[in-house]
Amino acid sequence: MDERIREHADVLVDWSARIESGDDVVVSVAEGAHDLAVAVAAALGERGANVVTTYASDEVSRAYLRAHPGDFDVADPELALYERADAVLFLGGGRNTFATADVDGETRQAAARANRPVREARLATDWVSTVHPTRSLAQQAGMSFEAYREFVYDAILRDWEALAGEMARLKRILDDGSEVRLVSADTDLTMSIEGRTAVNSAASVAYDSHNLPSGEVFTAPYDPEGVVRFDVPMTISGARVRDVTLRFEGGEVVDFDAAAGAEAIADILDTDGGARRLGELGIGMNRGIDRVTDNILFDEKMGDTVHLALGRAYEACLPAGEPGNDSAVHVDLITDMSEESRLEVDGEVVQRNGRFRWEEGSAPE
Amino acid sequence: MDERIREHADVLVDWSARIESGDDVVVSVAEGAHDLAVAVAAALGERGANVVTTYASDEVSRAYLRAHPGDFDVADPELALYERADAVLFLGGGRNTFATADVDGETRQAAARANRPVREARLATDWVSTVHPTRSLAQQAGMSFEAYREFVYDAILRDWEALAGEMARLKRILDDGSEVRLVSADTDLTMSIEGRTAVNSAASVAYDSHNLPSGEVFTAPYDPEGVVRFDVPMTISGARVRDVTLRFEGGEVVDFDAAAGAEAIADILDTDGGARRLGELGIGMNRGIDRVTDNILFDEKMGDTVHLALGRAYEACLPAGEPGNDSAVHVDLITDMSEESRLEVDGEVVQRNGRFRWEEGSAPE
Repeated sequence: MDERIREHADVLVDWSARIESGDDVVVSVAEGAHDLAVAVAAALGERGANVVTTYASDEVSRAYLRAHPGDFDVADPELALYERADAVLFLGGGRNTFATADVDGETRQAAARANRPVREARLATDWVSTVHPTRSLAQQAGMSFEAYREFVYDAILRDWEALAGEMARLKRILDDGSEVRLVSADTDLTMSIEGRTAVNSAASVAYDSHNLPSGEVFTAPYDPEGVVRFDVPMTISGARVRDVTLRFEGGEVVDFDAAAGAEAIADILDTDGGARRLGELGIGMNRGIDRVTDNILFDEKMGDTVHLALGRAYEACLPAGEPGNDSAVHVDLITDMSEESRLEVDGEVVQRNGRFRWEEGSAPE
Repeated sequence: MDERIREHADVLVDWSARIESGDDVVVSVAEGAHDLAVAVAAALGERGANVVTTYASDEVSRAYLRAHPGDFDVADPELALYERADAVLFLGGGRNTFATADVDGETRQAAARANRPVREARLATDWVSTVHPTRSLAQQAGMSFEAYREFVYDAILRDWEALAGEMARLKRILDDGSEVRLVSADTDLTMSIEGRTAVNSAASVAYDSHNLPSGEVFTAPYDPEGVVRFDVPMTISGARVRDVTLRFEGGEVVDFDAAAGAEAIADILDTDGGARRLGELGIGMNRGIDRVTDNILFDEKMGDTVHLALGRAYEACLPAGEPGNDSAVHVDLITDMSEESRLEVDGEVVQRNGRFRWEEGSAPE
């Protein structure tokens, strides 16, 4: 077995999920994630955790969803499984990113609605999502399998402690700040972050962070004004989306444009009222992620990028009792900040051309 | 997809497990059983059942067991999973029948002891075990993959209703009988079945039968006297076993001999007191199974064979409240009854040279 698979398992179990002896752990294994599952089982066994493995197969889901008459009900054993778990480790990595492409949207939504208690029980655990590099994901990224593996492990096998320390600086600035301004070619957007709390997303449940890799600081902005162009291409609901421009007035999207995928963006904006407002401002700080791979788990953490999400805000960013922006959707859009760009908080430049002000090589203001 | 995989799934879901709309079903998927899992998911979806899939990987188990310090505990989420399930479908079919060969016996037993509540919860459901034909199982059988698939579907895709009817005849004879005698070359064994109830194992939970394929009638004999030779070769605990002869006196094994695997047989007999007594007499009636494949799920149901098990008796065969033979083991040994053999109940020949007395071509008494 590739030594990096073992290291990945160790980071997942120790740094990300903080598993201890006696913990009850559910390991969800995607079709292509067998080798990582073996390494994770060894790591969990060594730490004396109790383990049950579930099979997360897109082809099995597709067959079930397409055959079902449509009156979905929650699977009670699955609900019980998560209700009794301390942690859930999702080992992604399928064999075809379009495996469920021919399940119609209505069926998908009906199943998701019925499954809501299961989802909530899962989110109440110390859950962590990661992926094992598969040929399918390499293909989605437009990369060879070998190169893709290098990419994935560069993103995952980092000095998380050190990165968490650096991200804490940015978190403090955002927590203390009132207004963020993004400026780059075709972008000049201001938004309020007053009273909101940033999350230091350091790939560990100890930091309220549930993705491996992670490496972003995010908060819940509101009242955006101005224009922003998202130049990082991505796939949203099966549609290629490129160069989306959003114009905000009075806190809402009033106009938009896209070089590709305009229909997908229109569908999102029409979901509900919250879909026209912002749910997230995230600042990517994982420099192990140095290219776009059309996988949001990686893309949104890419160093020198900023992403904004239309839709639902994360509870961790909101003052207790405040609902924040609510929506059925949460769709991230990403913009490159590495050139001719700056991110300001309350008028002070925090990042210019991808360099933070505390970094060597950052340009003088 | 091979149409027979779909038929297999339908037989499993409808005939064997009797799944109805709203049932909560756990589907356990072995490493090589993906294609069957897809077909089963479609069948379960069509019937409106609720489904959760678990991953039963020998390689994952091996990694976990070898790494664990040894103080195993029950996995509470797994216990909850089975406690809340109506049915559990075990889709076997691994990629290496020796995948856990280097897990030591002590570890295996400690894990099994800790896991007892999970096992019991599983057995309290409408569970069914079946296998998807894999290259590994073909290899174990000494067959090509193509030929092995033919073999498996011949065994599984039968007219179960008709076979259940035929087996009911034998069940009546055994239920009404007091003594069974087996006679063939090197075999002359009598045993009591007075007061015991035979199970018509027709591959359906409706018949108290939990294997697909099945096709045997079995009961719980006691007080065996005489000699029996088991000429069907098999693998027991990793050891090849051939031509085992057991001599019973006073209901217990007093002497034994084997052309191969004598040590494995000695280990079994030394497990506990119950391991020297009989737990089962089973009569194979599935003529779709026409050859030995070194897989007990198939071998013991082979037409024209009889098997006896050392060790634990099945509760379904015992009068209410009677414990029957108890042991930590239940080890089946098989003998061919197709030539120069007869099976008698209370002195009357029920089967001669593999033909039952109600069949055409059965020899006159």
